[in-house]
Amino acid sequence: MIGHAFMGAAHAQAWRTAHRVFDLPARPVMTVVAGRDEQATRAAAQRQGWAGHTTDWRTVLERDDVHVVDVCTPGDTHAEMALAALGAGKHVLCEKPLANTVAEAEQMAAAAREAERHGVWSSVGFSYRRTPALAYARELVARGALGTVRHVRAHYLQDWIVDPAFPLVWRLQKDKAGSGALGDIGAHVVDLAQWLTGQRLTDVAGHLTRFVERRPLAEATSGLRATSGEDDVETGEVTVDDAAVFLGRTDGGALATFEATRFATGRKNAMRIELNGSAGSLAFDFEAMNELDVYDGTVPARDAGFRRVLVTEPDHPYAGAWWPPGHGLGYEHTFVHQVADFVRDVATGTAPSPSFDDGLQVQRVLDAVERSSDAGATWTPV
Amino acid sequence: MIGHAFMGAAHAQAWRTAHRVFDLPARPVMTVVAGRDEQATRAAAQRQGWAGHTTDWRTVLERDDVHVVDVCTPGDTHAEMALAALGAGKHVLCEKPLANTVAEAEQMAAAAREAERHGVWSSVGFSYRRTPALAYARELVARGALGTVRHVRAHYLQDWIVDPAFPLVWRLQKDKAGSGALGDIGAHVVDLAQWLTGQRLTDVAGHLTRFVERRPLAEATSGLRATSGEDDVETGEVTVDDAAVFLGRTDGGALATFEATRFATGRKNAMRIELNGSAGSLAFDFEAMNELDVYDGTVPARDAGFRRVLVTEPDHPYAGAWWPPGHGLGYEHTFVHQVADFVRDVATGTAPSPSFDDGLQVQRVLDAVERSSDAGATWTPV
Amino acid sequence: MIGHAFMGAAHAQAWRTAHRVFDLPARPVMTVVAGRDEQATRAAAQRQGWAGHTTDWRTVLERDDVHVVDVCTPGDTHAEMALAALGAGKHVLCEKPLANTVAEAEQMAAAAREAERHGVWSSVGFSYRRTPALAYARELVARGALGTVRHVRAHYLQDWIVDPAFPLVWRLQKDKAGSGALGDIGAHVVDLAQWLTGQRLTDVAGHLTRFVERRPLAEATSGLRATSGEDDVETGEVTVDDAAVFLGRTDGGALATFEATRFATGRKNAMRIELNGSAGSLAFDFEAMNELDVYDGTVPARDAGFRRVLVTEPDHPYAGAWWPPGHGLGYEHTFVHQVADFVRDVATGTAPSPSFDDGLQVQRVLDAVERSSDAGATWTPV
Amino acid sequence: MIGHAFMGAAHAQAWRTAHRVFDLPARPVMTVVAGRDEQATRAAAQRQGWAGHTTDWRTVLERDDVHVVDVCTPGDTHAEMALAALGAGKHVLCEKPLANTVAEAEQMAAAAREAERHGVWSSVGFSYRRTPALAYARELVARGALGTVRHVRAHYLQDWIVDPAFPLVWRLQKDKAGSGALGDIGAHVVDLAQWLTGQRLTDVAGHLTRFVERRPLAEATSGLRATSGEDDVETGEVTVDDAAVFLGRTDGGALATFEATRFATGRKNAMRIELNGSAGSLAFDFEAMNELDVYDGTVPARDAGFRRVLVTEPDHPYAGAWWPPGHGLGYEHTFVHQVADFVRDVATGTAPSPSFDDGLQVQRVLDAVERSSDAGATWTPV
Repeated sequence: MIGHAFMGAAHAQAWRTAHRVFDLPARPVMTVVAGRDEQATRAAAQRQGWAGHTTDWRTVLERDDVHVVDVCTPGDTHAEMALAALGAGKHVLCEKPLANTVAEAEQMAAAAREAERHGVWSSVGFSYRRTPALAYARELVARGALGTVRHVRAHYLQDWIVDPAFPLVWRLQKDKAGSGALGDIGAHVVDLAQWLTGQRLTDVAGHLTRFVERRPLAEATSGLRATSGEDDVETGEVTVDDAAVFLGRTDGGALATFEATRFATGRKNAMRIELNGSAGSLAFDFEAMNELDVYDGTVPARDAGFRRVLVTEPDHPYAGAWWPPGHGLGYEHTFVHQVADFVRDVATGTAPSPSFDDGLQVQRVLDAVERSSDAGATWTPV
Repeated sequence: MIGHAFMGAAHAQAWRTAHRVFDLPARPVMTVVAGRDEQATRAAAQRQGWAGHTTDWRTVLERDDVHVVDVCTPGDTHAEMALAALGAGKHVLCEKPLANTVAEAEQMAAAAREAERHGVWSSVGFSYRRTPALAYARELVARGALGTVRHVRAHYLQDWIVDPAFPLVWRLQKDKAGSGALGDIGAHVVDLAQWLTGQRLTDVAGHLTRFVERRPLAEATSGLRATSGEDDVETGEVTVDDAAVFLGRTDGGALATFEATRFATGRKNAMRIELNGSAGSLAFDFEAMNELDVYDGTVPARDAGFRRVLVTEPDHPYAGAWWPPGHGLGYEHTFVHQVADFVRDVATGTAPSPSFDDGLQVQRVLDAVERSSDAGATWTPV
Repeated sequence: MIGHAFMGAAHAQAWRTAHRVFDLPARPVMTVVAGRDEQATRAAAQRQGWAGHTTDWRTVLERDDVHVVDVCTPGDTHAEMALAALGAGKHVLCEKPLANTVAEAEQMAAAAREAERHGVWSSVGFSYRRTPALAYARELVARGALGTVRHVRAHYLQDWIVDPAFPLVWRLQKDKAGSGALGDIGAHVVDLAQWLTGQRLTDVAGHLTRFVERRPLAEATSGLRATSGEDDVETGEVTVDDAAVFLGRTDGGALATFEATRFATGRKNAMRIELNGSAGSLAFDFEAMNELDVYDGTVPARDAGFRRVLVTEPDHPYAGAWWPPGHGLGYEHTFVHQVADFVRDVATGTAPSPSFDDGLQVQRVLDAVERSSDAGATWTPV
Repeated sequence: MIGHAFMGAAHAQAWRTAHRVFDLPARPVMTVVAGRDEQATRAAAQRQGWAGHTTDWRTVLERDDVHVVDVCTPGDTHAEMALAALGAGKHVLCEKPLANTVAEAEQMAAAAREAERHGVWSSVGFSYRRTPALAYARELVARGALGTVRHVRAHYLQDWIVDPAFPLVWRLQKDKAGSGALGDIGAHVVDLAQWLTGQRLTDVAGHLTRFVERRPLAEATSGLRATSGEDDVETGEVTVDDAAVFLGRTDGGALATFEATRFATGRKNAMRIELNGSAGSLAFDFEAMNELDVYDGTVPARDAGFRRVLVTEPDHPYAGAWWPPGHGLGYEHTFVHQVADFVRDVATGTAPSPSFDDGLQVQRVLDAVERSSDAGATWTPV
């Protein structure tokens, strides 16, 4: 695994746990973790349970006892690492967004298609697909429970940078993160919107905005103490979007609205998706991740209503491997499911989903949003 | 109408409105309102739309142009007024609780049965039965949607006397109000529990309690200014219960729990009823009075969940006479429905429901709760 | 009052009730109602409590005993009626949208300004401003509780025409209704977004769409019986939008998203507004109209959360005139409040709000949305 | 660890994970798991990550490399195992309820007190105390945010045996489980009610009931296929309660109501606690385990409301070790926290909480409820 911070910790928990809960054809062995800082990487290896560690990620690719490379770094390094790993014949699980540019993503997708011919697999980490409630939602749509989907309403609302004194971390720098709310959280809802409906976005019309132009340098704000009003705090330019809003049209005739923002005060991780179809609707909010609201429009109006389904039954996706009904799962379980699916696919020679091509398609949507924003919000083909 | 304060205002709004919304066989004429204070009664008559007013309620009974008497006074006067009105051949709509004692209630029920033989009708004002969501709930139970009812969970939670400086109003005095939370709000959920299930309580085991023993006299606290800590505030003894909790068993084998309290800080008018049956469940909270949560246990667990039904469809009880779906009703509409039902029943010679006998039965339950509380919470037959 | 259908019934209930609940300097007398069909208008007069009725609305303006004209007809007649009424020196309360075109609205606003000089007042019926929860929300924003508003998220979701067999009623015809979801329900959230924030939309970028192109003629579907599949049903062209989605920018730097649709299956009257500011947020859904969710961002994160305020306290806007805390109001109460405010303003010579100028401004926004939609969703100045 | 089924799996996940997430002074080594069936135990050892396994739990106590014994078996074996383990000088973490009888619990508590003198520690597994939202709730009460607690409303509602064809598993047999809903889930809310308030129950008045008297033998219903109506299904007697309802009084003057049932159709794991105090209230439902509703009664009524706190902030109990705000935890995390606390306490020589004495006190409450039920629901001292 390359990278050991927030995403790394979540992935490590998944690698440790998946075979303890699911019946897998192969058992993951946590060989080595790579990071930039020797001390931090060593500590992470010990904490997270990796047998070894290194500060040179390339050495990982040379090891015969490494079969899978899990890329958990910022987006600017995904292309280089994934291409090298695939080139070395390693299966690759790469965090989203697939890359910081469409060009990189195209290269990666091409490499993945090529590698696949040699039985080397790859997947991009749109882990929210593994939320039981959303996997159940997809089944509902697929079996026609919603009829023709008319509306997609996809929001991802957070509030962690509302305070202008919050420092200029790497996620706020375009050269590292590629984009801001758009790529970090907007990418998730774009993927989900397409995956849940089974439709692809063909056009988007949108707008990116920034509410706070400069922020204290991260180094200058250790401990995140309040620095507002102090003249001597060194600041830097925020180079990504704080919020992205856009409309979309799909190849299935649905009309979609998207909103990704880090300025929705009070919303901590409100990834919300609502689909309205000719025969029914569904609504989800990650802040209540074990629930799915489902409306069956074929029931007489007198008895109809949104049904709050607790997606914790034995026959719900993933849920059966865990606890009894009503005993909910948490955020990290989506990663456990991702590892379980990936290991099973790789071991059985099945193409994992989402593929790098799926990641590329999302990247193209994000790119079209940026182009639309530059062009005055006009409809822009993906 | 006798009495013109909170309940009087709600009833007056109902008498003014019912025939504007519902097709009624007769049109109410608001002849006269009676009260104790001349000035206040005259003002109420003008504000509420009564043609006349009087401070002697007995004169109302002598008028030939009065056919219906609506009793909205405190409970200690119900018996005297209702008996006189029935004796004078007037139809009677009497606020709940029917009376302050079982003995009074028995007298009233007997008089009502006698009057009925002469085509003189009576009903007790358990207005919450007229909430569309609860009328719909009753239909669900009646058509077997819940199967055998196992549990009744009936709470009525308010918080208006949490502050010890709140004055000793008539509702806190046993000689006027009969009891406290038990008779004022507990009576409602006892009636609803029995009416919704179609079952009667046969035994109760309960406990009454008082958290604040003395309060400032109402006269001493005009404007409800904070008086705590002042030595010179005259106080009086609270003589009713602040909270009542009790268990119940029904003739249909259900187990019930009741709680009525005025000390549930933050709960303003949380009248909540949940029924769990062998085939399904339902849950209601008056703070969201246009909704009913319904669980259909015959649906596969995978797709099951509590369905939030907005009870505002054209074919929901009462709702069709009002606005389009999703345009909710409010508290006073239950009184409009009560008047509409009562007028229709009286005009067509149908026995109104709930009858004084129903009111008597509730009174017996309340009485059994008090006896059980005195006897150490032991099971006490109703 | 001109018009006596859905809106007419709601307005009539308001005219009957306002002075019964609020202390008003003048007491409305319900003189005459005008309609097109003699029989229906006579029936409405009797049902709703109008002293007289007429099929010629112009005669209303000639009467000396009529001081206020309430226009409740479809949008295509607003301009003619309101101009005539103002010309006749009558105060005018006109339903929204103010008109079907900006040109008409400009004429009306000019006439209103002129009339004002002679003490003749006018107002447009954005009745949702009179929802206690939203009036309270406005006060919160005005007193700075949200800080700088960053996001406005305004949705109005209904589902009454999801069924393609639903007939071609007047609200689906451009010549009568002006537009579809945009003007009928989108107008409400545009007005609210501006009124709540105290900011004006300066640019919009949006898209109108239609999901069902032809529908059975209303005459052919009396009783709304299912007609799908029958070849002999005469159909007509739907000439308005089924859904409108648009982005907006305000003069205060906020970014807004709007969605108005009649195809959100399961959403009956989900008028939702969320505002996110630098210091706090608030969220509202008309399906739970007595509640406002408020987030105070100045509280330490540990103790912070969306607070569900039941807007039924004595000191909440409008609520004090009604019932005790927790005893909610319904849809029609917004109209009662509107009448109370209008009567008070007219009687005291105060300019009512919203004015025809406010109505014109909303009309300009709607017009800009249509122009943006025609121009490929590009940013379009209001 | 002794026992490896549902509870065993949850505990194993905790032992594997605690030191990966929390900074602990000692690192657990998963030495050996004991079970009755050789094959099943071997499989569990492999799946759950235990180095060894045995079918003779007594051999575990003889091993020098075992320092902690985790008892996850049914209640009838707790006393024997825990006493033996303490006698062998092992620290003991014992699942709840502590024992099946008060006599056993007293013996265990005495042994624990004795062992403590030699630095051997014990704790009982009321894991729900480790839910971040409830740990936060306790802090609120402890710092006086609720003032004097008036009401405790504690429900634990499940529905897994509503179907009469559900088989006679060990949890439905008194000799193995001790009691039914009372001890299994009622014990949790009794412990929480006391722990959250810092008060002890002094008297209870309650009733136990059984809705289904006989059930198919578990062996006869492999796969839980529907067996109702088949004459040849062998059945056995259910010997525990299906539901327990009881009132309680605390030494702090609070009035409590409890309900534990396995017949609340649609409620999967609805462990709900509401506390109403003179200064505020709080409410919790385990089906939404990352949220706590908090009402601050000191805020002016106009601005007051239940605040939905997402208990996922860095400074919330336990939460800081996991993910960013809004990224919720799941059921098993309560066990991870339990292990972390236990390991930390044992390693630092601190008395773990809840102690066996705490477990004994809960046992006494359960016993008093049974005695009260036998005595006609009369108040019974604990």
